[in-house]
Amino acid sequence: MFEIQAIEIVGLVAATLTTSSFIPQVYKAYKTKDVEGVSLTMFLAMFVGVLLWLVYGFYINSLSMVIANIITSILCMAILVLKIKHRKKV
Amino acid sequence: MFEIQAIEIVGLVAATLTTSSFIPQVYKAYKTKDVEGVSLTMFLAMFVGVLLWLVYGFYINSLSMVIANIITSILCMAILVLKIKHRKKV
Repeated sequence: MFEIQAIEIVGLVAATLTTSSFIPQVYKAYKTKDVEGVSLTMFLAMFVGVLLWLVYGFYINSLSMVIANIITSILCMAILVLKIKHRKKV
Repeated sequence: MFEIQAIEIVGLVAATLTTSSFIPQVYKAYKTKDVEGVSLTMFLAMFVGVLLWLVYGFYINSLSMVIANIITSILCMAILVLKIKHRKKV
């Protein structure tokens, strides 16, 4: 019982970190408008992938997967919007 | 049976996308050396989070979680190295 709880705490911390990690990138892109080094392809692939994880989470009835992937998709979308808005035309 | 297979394909595509999404960011940072817009905090938090997912995956005996998180941690580490190497001293 203790072991199950301990590993679920590891999972919760992991989910919190990987989900919230997008926040500083959103903040940085919003503040500096410097998005040249940010890969559009990365965040497009991540966005589509996260939407598919959301479908998967719904299907297997995992509330934590659904919540984490809704938050991540919103943050990912914000980075995409900032990247497209502020990128230099070549 | 068919439904289970279909949703597992969604999961596999999702895992492939979210894992491989880091590759274009590694490539971009390596080629352009422009990492100013890349958030160090994002990839640090992501790296620690992915390592914890790896621990979680080992614990629950999920081979796909272990493989995906080993690959993601290596790609994340590559972005961190490039970010630290090429960032401008302020």
